[in-house]
This record gives sequence, structure tokens and C-alpha cells, in this order.
Amino acid sequence: MSKAWSGRFEQPTDKRVERFTESISFDYRLGVHDIQGSIAHVEMLSEVGLISSQERTQLCAELRNIDRNIREGQMEIRPELEDIHMHIERDVIDALGDIGRKIHTGRSRNDQVSTAFRLWMRDSIAALDQLLGDLQLAFVNRAESDMGIILPAYTHMQRAQPVLASHHWLAYCEKLQRDRDRLQDTRKRVNVLPLGTAALAGSSLPLDRESVASKLGFDAISQNSLDASSDRDFAAEFLFDLAMIAEHLSSWAEEGIIWSTIEFDFIRLPDAFCTGSSIMPQKKNPDVLELIRGKTGRVLGDLQALLTILKGLPLAYNRDLQEDKIPVFDAYDTIGSCLSVAVPLVDGIQLNQKAINSRLEQGFLDATTLMEYLIGKGIPMRTGHEMVGQLVKQCEQHQMTLSDLPLEDFQKLSSEVEEDVFDHLGVQNAVKAFQTVGSTAFGQVQSQLSAWQDRLPVSPDPG
Amino acid sequence: MSKAWSGRFEQPTDKRVERFTESISFDYRLGVHDIQGSIAHVEMLSEVGLISSQERTQLCAELRNIDRNIREGQMEIRPELEDIHMHIERDVIDALGDIGRKIHTGRSRNDQVSTAFRLWMRDSIAALDQLLGDLQLAFVNRAESDMGIILPAYTHMQRAQPVLASHHWLAYCEKLQRDRDRLQDTRKRVNVLPLGTAALAGSSLPLDRESVASKLGFDAISQNSLDASSDRDFAAEFLFDLAMIAEHLSSWAEEGIIWSTIEFDFIRLPDAFCTGSSIMPQKKNPDVLELIRGKTGRVLGDLQALLTILKGLPLAYNRDLQEDKIPVFDAYDTIGSCLSVAVPLVDGIQLNQKAINSRLEQGFLDATTLMEYLIGKGIPMRTGHEMVGQLVKQCEQHQMTLSDLPLEDFQKLSSEVEEDVFDHLGVQNAVKAFQTVGSTAFGQVQSQLSAWQDRLPVSPDPG
Amino acid sequence: MSKAWSGRFEQPTDKRVERFTESISFDYRLGVHDIQGSIAHVEMLSEVGLISSQERTQLCAELRNIDRNIREGQMEIRPELEDIHMHIERDVIDALGDIGRKIHTGRSRNDQVSTAFRLWMRDSIAALDQLLGDLQLAFVNRAESDMGIILPAYTHMQRAQPVLASHHWLAYCEKLQRDRDRLQDTRKRVNVLPLGTAALAGSSLPLDRESVASKLGFDAISQNSLDASSDRDFAAEFLFDLAMIAEHLSSWAEEGIIWSTIEFDFIRLPDAFCTGSSIMPQKKNPDVLELIRGKTGRVLGDLQALLTILKGLPLAYNRDLQEDKIPVFDAYDTIGSCLSVAVPLVDGIQLNQKAINSRLEQGFLDATTLMEYLIGKGIPMRTGHEMVGQLVKQCEQHQMTLSDLPLEDFQKLSSEVEEDVFDHLGVQNAVKAFQTVGSTAFGQVQSQLSAWQDRLPVSPDPG
Amino acid sequence: MSKAWSGRFEQPTDKRVERFTESISFDYRLGVHDIQGSIAHVEMLSEVGLISSQERTQLCAELRNIDRNIREGQMEIRPELEDIHMHIERDVIDALGDIGRKIHTGRSRNDQVSTAFRLWMRDSIAALDQLLGDLQLAFVNRAESDMGIILPAYTHMQRAQPVLASHHWLAYCEKLQRDRDRLQDTRKRVNVLPLGTAALAGSSLPLDRESVASKLGFDAISQNSLDASSDRDFAAEFLFDLAMIAEHLSSWAEEGIIWSTIEFDFIRLPDAFCTGSSIMPQKKNPDVLELIRGKTGRVLGDLQALLTILKGLPLAYNRDLQEDKIPVFDAYDTIGSCLSVAVPLVDGIQLNQKAINSRLEQGFLDATTLMEYLIGKGIPMRTGHEMVGQLVKQCEQHQMTLSDLPLEDFQKLSSEVEEDVFDHLGVQNAVKAFQTVGSTAFGQVQSQLSAWQDRLPVSPDPG
Repeated sequence: MSKAWSGRFEQPTDKRVERFTESISFDYRLGVHDIQGSIAHVEMLSEVGLISSQERTQLCAELRNIDRNIREGQMEIRPELEDIHMHIERDVIDALGDIGRKIHTGRSRNDQVSTAFRLWMRDSIAALDQLLGDLQLAFVNRAESDMGIILPAYTHMQRAQPVLASHHWLAYCEKLQRDRDRLQDTRKRVNVLPLGTAALAGSSLPLDRESVASKLGFDAISQNSLDASSDRDFAAEFLFDLAMIAEHLSSWAEEGIIWSTIEFDFIRLPDAFCTGSSIMPQKKNPDVLELIRGKTGRVLGDLQALLTILKGLPLAYNRDLQEDKIPVFDAYDTIGSCLSVAVPLVDGIQLNQKAINSRLEQGFLDATTLMEYLIGKGIPMRTGHEMVGQLVKQCEQHQMTLSDLPLEDFQKLSSEVEEDVFDHLGVQNAVKAFQTVGSTAFGQVQSQLSAWQDRLPVSPDPG
Repeated sequence: MSKAWSGRFEQPTDKRVERFTESISFDYRLGVHDIQGSIAHVEMLSEVGLISSQERTQLCAELRNIDRNIREGQMEIRPELEDIHMHIERDVIDALGDIGRKIHTGRSRNDQVSTAFRLWMRDSIAALDQLLGDLQLAFVNRAESDMGIILPAYTHMQRAQPVLASHHWLAYCEKLQRDRDRLQDTRKRVNVLPLGTAALAGSSLPLDRESVASKLGFDAISQNSLDASSDRDFAAEFLFDLAMIAEHLSSWAEEGIIWSTIEFDFIRLPDAFCTGSSIMPQKKNPDVLELIRGKTGRVLGDLQALLTILKGLPLAYNRDLQEDKIPVFDAYDTIGSCLSVAVPLVDGIQLNQKAINSRLEQGFLDATTLMEYLIGKGIPMRTGHEMVGQLVKQCEQHQMTLSDLPLEDFQKLSSEVEEDVFDHLGVQNAVKAFQTVGSTAFGQVQSQLSAWQDRLPVSPDPG
Repeated sequence: MSKAWSGRFEQPTDKRVERFTESISFDYRLGVHDIQGSIAHVEMLSEVGLISSQERTQLCAELRNIDRNIREGQMEIRPELEDIHMHIERDVIDALGDIGRKIHTGRSRNDQVSTAFRLWMRDSIAALDQLLGDLQLAFVNRAESDMGIILPAYTHMQRAQPVLASHHWLAYCEKLQRDRDRLQDTRKRVNVLPLGTAALAGSSLPLDRESVASKLGFDAISQNSLDASSDRDFAAEFLFDLAMIAEHLSSWAEEGIIWSTIEFDFIRLPDAFCTGSSIMPQKKNPDVLELIRGKTGRVLGDLQALLTILKGLPLAYNRDLQEDKIPVFDAYDTIGSCLSVAVPLVDGIQLNQKAINSRLEQGFLDATTLMEYLIGKGIPMRTGHEMVGQLVKQCEQHQMTLSDLPLEDFQKLSSEVEEDVFDHLGVQNAVKAFQTVGSTAFGQVQSQLSAWQDRLPVSPDPG
Repeated sequence: MSKAWSGRFEQPTDKRVERFTESISFDYRLGVHDIQGSIAHVEMLSEVGLISSQERTQLCAELRNIDRNIREGQMEIRPELEDIHMHIERDVIDALGDIGRKIHTGRSRNDQVSTAFRLWMRDSIAALDQLLGDLQLAFVNRAESDMGIILPAYTHMQRAQPVLASHHWLAYCEKLQRDRDRLQDTRKRVNVLPLGTAALAGSSLPLDRESVASKLGFDAISQNSLDASSDRDFAAEFLFDLAMIAEHLSSWAEEGIIWSTIEFDFIRLPDAFCTGSSIMPQKKNPDVLELIRGKTGRVLGDLQALLTILKGLPLAYNRDLQEDKIPVFDAYDTIGSCLSVAVPLVDGIQLNQKAINSRLEQGFLDATTLMEYLIGKGIPMRTGHEMVGQLVKQCEQHQMTLSDLPLEDFQKLSSEVEEDVFDHLGVQNAVKAFQTVGSTAFGQVQSQLSAWQDRLPVSPDPG
């Protein structure tokens, strides 16, 4: 019988079971991380005398061979070998015989898998950080080039107050920054070495875990083997971080979809980022944005999948945990592709200033500014709110804007009101009036933009 | 420019967008269902005079060619053709020119996809029904061969009352029957033809939708085109049905995992259905059961994914809906593989009667029977409960069973108690005492078993 | 010690545990259903001779007293009595002594709770069916009063083809009908009597389960006691049905929110259904629609909660199942309130015809009709699609509509094109052209409307 | 008309709408945090001259009055006032007239609610940190008192290797520590002041946001008003942290449920933490543990609820966000109660050493130790694994343990094996053999225990 663990078994594994339990179809991508971990493990085995330095040399050389095979897609896949880790061990044994049979000294697949998975995730966090930074930079570039354009801003999808388009774009930089920060916080819990946990209780061999951690760049080693064997917190946390990125992208996508309707007409999407209809000749659809929005479901489902898997599992490792990698890889690939396509899309969107401006005075975007003017004249806020509400009702009935009203109408509210009230009406004046930190005031937005430009690298990674 | 819809576009589609929006990588499996629908569509077009009968002959012949190519894996995949439907249309046009350009007459991809997806789902429901029936039969076979074996039954994982093993197995038949019934209810809403909805408003061409429905075996045609264009209820419902199957399998798997511990030792799993440990030489693990339990997460995640996708989508079709097939296919494949591996596992499990019997008198499984005996002697139920509770406490303190107590101890409870009380004590007597319909009484279980044997086909599908 | 089950216990229950495990705070609402079940149970006990007819009379009278107390909010709540069922039993015992101590004969709380829960759910399904019917009727009434108004219909949120507003409203009737049908399918699995399952294995007492089922209007009795004790399929299925209602409402709400923006301006919401802003005096927000959309999350969360709870529970009853009622009640109340507020909102919305009409010729809503005209002239569909696509591009560049083009431009496409092409252009003509079953053609919509009017009761329940 | 925002409205709010949109029924608990924020806001208004110092004195005094009313449950609730914030403003206005009408100067409900919610969450994180610390301490105390007791440890629920009970308990300390660390990371994103965002664009009034932040102990102020208005990342992140706590508790609960079965019999739960059966007199059920496990569903559902709500919401505030507090409060209360009841339960559980020891030599817990001994003798690991697997098979067939085998059997494996092999066999020897950092070796566990004792405060908070 051929399984690495078949000594105590009397029957070979059923073929259906091999197909059902294999993970090589999805953990193949951990091959290079497994080898990274295996090399460090082998070096440590030699340091503590469990293998000779000659054995170490041969094992490391062979591991590098296999690494090359994997990167070139040359590894032969045999489903009965279950996973990438058994494939690598088998190749080592095939090449080196008894020396190869020593590679698994002092480790189990559990800690081996967890180590490789964490190494993969560390790389993936770095890649996501880069992509998130690229997307921030795309928004910053828009904020710079769109400086001065005024948009209506919305609450409840109803026009609220005017804002600078640049202020709008920079809002997404803030959200994406929290995504980056969360990933860095998660990284602290990812970057802990489980190797040395062995089966679940540690080992009676003189393994030097600190040495392995140091070689692999882990910040710490796990302190309790039962915990390390059962821990998938890091994977759930990574999935949550991805879910939040999906949420942010879905908001931006929803907005882009609405803004590209004929009715809003705020933006034009590049033809190259739209597709047509198989039946309707005139259609140009924002498919990319719709798919980004829809893929939120996929990532939320992935998070739910792992959280459901973890529920009610007793210590320590249970095979259910093998299912952790499927949602993690799926969510990572999904978010990676969404971010990659979002960057050129943010670059390529055009603000349709003519259409935006043509209705900019609709919706009483200056009503709050007027109320704040009245507050400055000593009218209590809540009274001012009521007064302006009445004026708005009056304007709606006569299809007027606030700036269309005669001075007398304002002076009925308070004798303190003077001609300068008109300097606070209209969208341009309303924007100029802002002054608080974090507001859409020109100076505020300009300084925020500069801060982001200082913070982000000049250009996105060309990769 | 080569896209079927590119007439009004000025730029070709960005390559990144083609990769991001393609679905051919997962909707390839709908190819045969697309062709089934397309042949019916072409026949109808000829019936109503939109194409000639000669054109129909050529189109149908070519569709059958393509069908063969797909089944043999010969179709050439071009990501820029987006999905399987465009691939098929392109192949038809390549082969037949202008005649091929007529195949999409009176339909859109939306109604075409929904039709193919429903045909696939109808087949899949039939396949699941077969698999669920196979699994029921496996439980029925066990119920027959294990007839007479008594198990402790549990509430709160604490021993409750004795039951026949056969009764236990048949409980799963009930659950799986509800799964089958739910799928048949879902089928009613799946088996409605959307084709003819065209873009979203119907067509100005004289399409005969009833004819297409009849050819394809649909029970009805959709009555409102906007609804049909946006409807994915059937997919969500199918996913829910799969989620419930997953739940039932997870319960059975959990039980099997617990029962195969050294501590319970109720069952022995076949070696061929277990795997070992890479480090611990003695291990024999119930991996198949653990993975079945774990895969519940995946299916629940798939359901969540689609429900999230559907949230807040306005009428009618939105591209987000393309993401419906990924969770549906994933959940179907997952449940299909779980059911397929569960059937031989149910067959292969061995009840370890020796271990079961050795502790069968533990846990006061006859306490409720004793209480019911007292009720028969005129003692109010709640009083009888209290009395037996006190006896149990007394027995626990002296490490005795109820049948170890002397008659006097029972007669202290009521002078009505006679020697026959001992005919109600002990697990064998307790099982014999049951009499209600649906209970674990021998006669009840035997008649349930017969009913199931009549209901289910004799042997599972050999496929 | 006072607990009904405390005979074998040596310590009283910790107060913290009483607070943690009680369910009276949320299962109080099952009181009337518990009594309904208890009366049927008592009558059966008397029929089979387990209690006398005099005892039956006293028990039933007392249960009716308690029912009155519950309906009047007079029942004294004592957390140490855990749940509503123990409260009722305690009140019966307090009133009737030993006779009261007989009420629990032959049943456990498990089957008692499941019976009461199913009775509640049966009533709740009826109430939801009524509310869904009311909402359908509201849409039907709109369809009648808005007959003749044309709206742009959308795919991908981009203008697609023109439809009758009535067609749009009736699309929701279809969705809501599926919701009603699903609830009726669920009802089949709800309306099965578990009582008589007793602890989990049935009873040794001569209970007549069919008699109880008949008295309570159950269609069937459960056939396997272990299944009945552990079954919560019906609750999960009910939650799924509610989740689908939530999805449908969320789509309608999203549409209403978008349609009431200044940019779309398709509808006016009644002031009485909007709220304002604490700071912005001009705001009138579609809060009701936003909350309906948002509450989808709550109902999806409730479904996910129960599905997570059920994962991996071995047979039979486990206390985890007590948590089933919290999400079920929450989702039911949520959907009930959403439907209740949706009915008057559908009634009160006003279509803003002026704004709709002012831009109705935008978006080339007639492009597909033109293509279908060309098909009628013998042009292959795919060729016609390309031709019309080119015309649309041309029109866009010159800011024209298709009907602005001269006849010659059409005749360049095919010499078959004649003056009658203009009878197929423009939104009015495009709507007139439809003819397929289920389309937005006037006749089709009219006949659909009549069918719905025949199907639905004349007026909503005044309750 | 009485609403604070009713100036521009022509109809009063429908009563059904008031009931549907109110949040006072669940945001009442934010009252004290609203007042905390309002006092800081009022002080700042006075600092920048928007109100006089006398007005400030009166407003702050009145706010403190209201705070007292809220804490004493004296506030009059009027559903038409929507939420706690409007209730407080109304009370201020009722008491102070025009001065009260100034309190809302420069703020909107959006930033006001977000501020109060963050203050509540900051307190809640502190409370959870305390509870998690208490639970860690309970495990540490057990680890100390159970020092020396050996348990079988499990992977795949199959016996794997022996561990110290103390090592097992400390595994949970690690998990709970990650929960605490995650909450602290979340706190960084919670503890950012949104106040000053006003409606969504900032204010034209000279508000001093840094002053408010400083008064309230916020680490930073939000830098982009549109982001702050729409941001609910902090709430989702908090819910995720709670979900992970639920997962950890569910694992521990599952283990406790299994360990308290008759079959395992590893632990005895205190009577005061169990409940009985309404029908089965002998039952003593681990209800608390089951409910803790089941409530995982509730918390996962709460997380899913908010993630669904957030999907696809465009900038900035949408009323859907009002639904954020329901799942957050529910999950917090749920986890709070679970932790509170877990602490005394961990204290009260008794390890049943007799039962544990009686089967401790079952399951070949020393097989890996034997293999590692062979590695020390120069046998390659994979060869040693196979050899020991064969010995295990042999022992199973003859119902022996490894230590029952004669020396010759070991020497057949390698001539290097000597009498000292028996010093590595048996559970006691196997435990003694461990030596790696983080392993279950006595010294390792002792030093981990000391580290935890140094790290945690001496006794749990008596509250």
C-alpha cells in the first residue's frame, strides 16, 4: 500500500474517497510556500543534529528542483497523494530515498499546512496592499484632475449639499485606507509560526522553532500547540477584511451604475469597459460595475462558509478545516480581480460636467447654508431650520430657487438679515462657505489631497 | 470589431474586461442545455414562418454537431466570446453564414440563459432525487439488517430512552424524504419557460411560446416578461434545498464522528473510508464524515452568496445575476459528491454491538417507562416524575440501576405497585413497552420499514 | 425545590443560569397555541382513559381561563419557570392540584413546543398570505389606474425598451405569487403533528395521535419519533420564504428610491410616508423604502442564524434548538411590518407623467423594434442588430433619435424598407408593436390585469 | 406640526410610518452616550462663540438632568419623536425654549448618532475586554488546580497524543487573547470622532472638532465628511470580533457537551448549571453549553445582517444604516451573557480523573513518541512511521498496548533499539518526552501558566 500513513490500515483507500478527500486540485498553489517552509525546516533539522549537513544540502537542492517544477507546471499530479504536501514529500523520497524519508521529521501535515497557508497569506496581504494603494492613487489622481468640479452630494439618495468632486473621490481613499490598516492588523496574527506544533502536542525531538521562525520572517512562534493546531482565526479575519473591501467596492460600483444612467448622466464609462446586448442594438451596459457589485455576494458567502465550518469544532485539528482554503482562495482571487479592473476604470471614467451643471441648482443644496447664515444672525438653529423649511416649501410651489426670492422674504425671518444673504445662496456660494476640518471646503480638500499625494507612492505598480 | 453586439461601440473591449466578465469558464456545462433550448427555438421559428423549413433543417443539424463537439470536449474556447451561448452562436454562424445569423431571432441572452439554466436544474433535480433515494435505500437496508439491535437514544447528547437501531436509521429517511419533496416543490417554479421574454418586454415577432414550452417539457410559460427577466427565485430556492440536504448530512456525519470515537465505540468505519495521519502512526480518522460536515459551510455560503447578490436589484435583468451560476454549480457539485460518498459509507459502517451492549443499562434509559407505569397505577404524571427522579438520585449515589432496587422501594411510592414493575425495567423491557404510532415499538418500526421498502425502488442506480 | 424536573437534582439552579436559559421573554406569544394544543391533548387523554371525563372538563375549563389571562396580559411571569409551557402547567397545577399534575401525561416539552410552534406558524402563514394578497391587490389597483402610461424599462439600469406602467406593477404580482405559493408548499411540512413523540421515542401509554391531529387540523402525524424530535426543517423553510419576500421587497424599494431622486423624478412619495432631516431644511427622504431595503439584511441574518444553529447537531433534540424561535419571530415581525407599510405606500405613490414623458424618447427604446422590423424584411437578426447599432452610433453623434433619420438612411440597410418603418419608431409605436404572450402589449397586459382581478379578492382585509 | 424637520412638509407623518421608522425602542440605551457627546458639543459651541457661556451652563445642567432621568428610567417615550436623540433635544427645548433650540447647532443626527454609537462601543469593548480577561483567569485557575492531570488529546475526534489538562485549558487563553487583541485593533477605528461632519459635507460654522475630540477622549477626528457620514466599518468589525468570540465559545461548549456524555464521562457539570427534562426523570442536561453553542448562530446571523445591509449603498448616509444597531446590540448582549455564564461554569466543572485514567492507555497515545524514539536511533521518519503503524495493527489484533510488546518486537525494527524504549512508552512517559517550546511538556506548561498569571489581574472583577 502506498499511502504515507498506511502502516496500520488493512484496506486500501476507496477511489471515491480519494476523489472526495483530495485537496491537490486547490492547494497546488501552496506548493512554493510549502517548499519555502520545508527548506527552513530542513535547515533547522540539520542545525539541531537530526539530519547531517550533507543530507540538508541534498534535501534543499531537491526542494529547489521541485519548486522549479511547480512554477513551470511540471509536477505530476496523482490524486491518491491527496495534497500538495504529500506530492512534494513523495518527489523528495523518489529522488533521495532514505534521506527523503527524513524530511517530515518533527512535523505533521497540520502544522506544515498552516505554515504554508500563513506564508501564502502574508504574500497575499502584501499584494492586496499594493492593489489597494494603486486604487487609492487612481482616486487621488482623479481628485487632482477634477479639482473645482462641484457635485450634488446625497443622503437617502436625495440631494443634500454641494461638494467638490475631489472630496467625493477622497472619501474612497479613507475607506480603502481602513482596509489596508485592517489587513496590517490581521497580518500580526497571521505572522506567527505554528511549525513545531507537530501532531498537536509538540514534539519530543529537539526542534528549534525560533530558528525556523527567524529564517521565515515570522514575528513570533505559537505558544500553545493545541491552540495552534486548531487555530483558523487568521483565515476568518482575512476573509472579513476581504468582505469589507467588497463592501466598499460595491458602494462605489452602485454609485457608478446610478451615475451612468441616462437620468443622472453624471459620468461616461469608456466603451472598452462596457458591453452590449445580444438583442438590443443601442445598449451600452456598465457590466464591470455590476459584476463588482454582484461579487460582494460571493465574498460574503465565502466568509459565511468558513464561519459555519468553524462552529462547534472541538480541539484540536479536524478535517473540516481543509475546507478553509477554498473560500479564502476564492475570495482573494475575486477581490484581486475586482481591484485590478477598478484601477483603470477609475482612471477612465469621465465626469459629464455639462449635465451635472445643468441641474446643479436643483434640490436646494444651499438650504443648510442659509440656515447657518441665520444662526450667525442669532436665530436659534431649530427655529432657523423651520424658517428655511417654510421657504423651501414656498419655492417648490412656485418652482423657484432660494436665490430667486426677494430680500424682503428673508427679512421677514429676521430684521438682521441683510443683502449679504445672497452671498450664501447658490451652489458656488454654498461650497465656498464651508470651513470645518474634514469638510468639502476648497482649502480642506486641497490639503487632504496633498496629504494623500505625500502618503502614496507616485505611480502604481506597473505589474 | 467582432462582438455580436459591437455595432454602436467605438472602442474594442479591454482585454482585462474580457477576462473579468467572461463566464465561459463556468457556464460551459450549460452547453448541451443551450442546444436543447436552441433546437426547440429554431423549430418554433420555422413553424411561425420566421425562418424556412430548410433553414431549420440546417440549423438543427449544425446545433447537433456542436452538441457532439461539446460532449466530446472539442469546442474551441475563446474568452472574448464571453459565454457558452455566444460560442454556440458563433459556431453556427461560422458554419452557416446568414442562416446562422438568424438563430438569435426573437430572443435575448437573458431569456436564453434562464432557459438553459432551468433545463440544467430540472435535470439536476432528477439526479439529486435519485441520489437521495439511493441514500434512503442504504438506510433502509441497514434498518433491515440491524433489526433487533438496541441503541441508547439521546437528547442534549445525554442518554434518554432506548430505541431500535432501525428506528434511528429510518429517522434519516424521513429527513431525506422532505429534501426530495422540497426539490419537487421547487421544480414547479423551475419548470416555467422564460424564453420569449426577449430583452425584457416581449417581442414584436410572432413567437409561439407555448410551442417551445411543449417541445421542452415546461409545464407553463412565464406570464410577465419583466418578472421573467429578473427572476432568480428558482435558483435561490434550489440552493436552499441543497442547504437543507447539507444540514441533514452534517447531523448524520457529526453522529458518525462521535460514534466512532474510542469513548463511544458504537461503530467501526471501513478502513477504505478513513485516512491516516502524516505523523501519528496509530491514527485512523473519519475524514469523509468530517468533510461532509465541513462542506455544510460551503453550501450555506453559496446560499448566502446568491441571497446577497439579489438584494436591492431593481427590475429587470442586471449583470450581477451572472454570478448566480457559480454558487449553484458549486453547491450542486458539493452535495452530489457528499451524497455519492455517503451511500457506500452507510452500507459499510458496522455497529459494534458488544461495546453498545456493555453499557446499555447505563443512563437510566428505563426511567420514563417506570414513570409511565406509575401513571398507569393512577399516580399523576408530575408526581410520578418527581418520584422516579428521587429513585434515580438514590441509585446514582449507590451506583445501582432501577432494576436493582427491591420491590419495597417501589411500593413506597404507591401501594398499587406490584411485582410486574420489573417487567417495565431494563432496556429490553423499556423498548417492548412502547406502543404509539411513530414510536420505536418493534411493530411500529417493522411497519415503517415495510412502508419504505414498498416506496423505494429495489436497488440504487448502478451509475 | 420547585422545578418540574428537579427530582434528581441536589442543587437548585443558579440564578444566572435561569436568566441565561429562560425563553419566556420570547415564547410568551406561543401561549394561546400551547393551550390550543393542550386542550386537544387533554381531550384525547380522556378518550383513551388516561384521565376521567370530569378531569378533562376541569382541565379544559382551567386552560380556557389561562388563555383569557394570556390574551389580557394577566399571566404572572416567573423567570424560574423557564418558558410559557411551564408557566401554563404551573397555573393548571396551582388551580387544580393533582388533576393539574396529569396534564403533561404522555408528552414532553419537546413535542409540546414543536406542536405549539407549528400551530403558530400555520396561523402566521395565513396572515402572510393575506398581507401578500393585499399587496398584490395594491399593485393590481395601480395597474388599473395607471393603464396607458408608458415607462422606460431597464436592464443593467440602462434604458432598454418601453413598457406599460401596468406591466411593471404586475411583475411584482408574479413575484409575490411565488412567495404565496412557496408558503403553501412549506405549510405542507409545517402541518404535521409531532405530539405523541414524547421524549424522543414515543410512549408506552395508549395515546391516540390521530385523534389529536384531527382535532387540531393537522394533515398528518409524524411517522418517526426521532425525526420529529430533532426536526426544524419547517422553521428553516419558513425563514427562507420570508427571506425571498424580503428580496422582492428590497428590489421594489430600491426602484422606488431611485425613481424618487430628483434625477429620475418618476414618482412622488406622499409626505406622510417620508421624513425630513434634523439639519437640512429642504430634505424629504424616502425612509420607509430605505428601511424596507435595509431590513432585508435582518431577515437574511435570521435565516443564516438558524442554518448555523442546525449545523452538526446529532439526533435528537438539543437545547440549541430553543434559539429557533428568536430568528423566526424576528423575521416574521419584520416582514409583517414591511408588508403592512408597503400596501398604503403602493397606493399612495404618484407617477410623475410629465417628467417621465419629457425624456421618454431618450435612450433609443425603439431600437429593438426597428431591428425586428428589419427581420420582417428578411434581414438576418444578427445583421439587423449590427445595422441598427450603427444607426444608433450615428444618431448619438448628432444627438438625434432614430425617428429623426430620413427614409434613405433606412433604405441603405435594405431596399425592402419602406415608409412604414416610421410606424415602428418612437416609443408609442414600439409599445404597440409587441405581440407575444407575457409581453407588454396592451392586449396582453389588459388580459393579465383581468386575470389578477378575478384571482384576488375585491378589497384588502380592513384589519 | 410637531416634527423637528417638518417645515417643508404639508402632511403629518402617517402613524404606521412612525411605528415603522422609530428607533427609540432600541436606541434608548444610547441616551447616556448621546448626552456625553452633547455636553462636549455644547462646551465647544460656547468656546467658539456660537452660544454664550450662560447658555452653555444652562444646556449642560439640563443635559445632566435628562441623563439622570434616563438612568432612572424616567424619560417619557413618545414614538413620534423617532429616536433617543430627538427625545433629548425635545426635553432640552421643553425646559429651556430658545436656548434649547440652539443645541443642534452645527450637527446633524447622522454625526450625532455615529458619535454616540462609537462612545457606546468604546465602553462595550472595555466591558468585553474585562469579561474575556475574567474567562482567561478562570482557565488559568483551572490550569493551576488541574496541574498534573493527563488527558487524551484529539485530532479528528480520535485520540492522538496525551496532554496535560493545564495545557488544554491554556489553549483557550490563547484564543481569547486574540479576541482581546482584535477588539483593541477595532478600537483604533472606533475611536475616531465623526462629529462636525454635520449633514455630510462639513459646516460653514466655526466648529472646533479637535476640541470636541479631546473632551471625549477620541484619538483622532475623521478627515473626510462624506466618508464619516457613510462609514459603518467599525460596527461590522465589532460584529466580526464578536463572531470570533462566539466561535471560540462554541468549540469549548461542544467539547464540554461531549465530555459530559456518559460515554466520555471526563467532566461533571454542577447541578446548578444543568436543567432536567419535563418528561424523563433521570435527565441532567448541559443546557448552558448547548445554548452557548447555539447562540453562535445568532451572532453569525447578526454579522451577516449588517454585511448585507451595507452591500451596494451609495454615498453618503442612507436610512438603511439605522438597522446597524439592532444586530450590534443583539450580538453584544448575547456574547456578554455567554461570557458571564461561562466564567462560573469553567470554575465549577470537575474533571473526573477516575474515568479519564481508566482508559488513558487506550488509543496508542504513545505511538508518535515511539516513532520519535526510532528517529533518534537513526531510522528515517517515514520508515519509523510505517514500522510503528505495523506494530499498532499487530497490537489491535491482539488487544494489546505498545508497552505490552516484548523487546524483541522492537528490536526487529532496528538493532539500535534497547531496553530504554520502554521509558518512552505509556502515557506518562509520552508526556515526559515532550520538549519543544509551546508543547505540553511539564516545564513548558508551567512556564506558560506563570506567564499568564503574571499577565492577568489576580481576580475577576466582582461586578
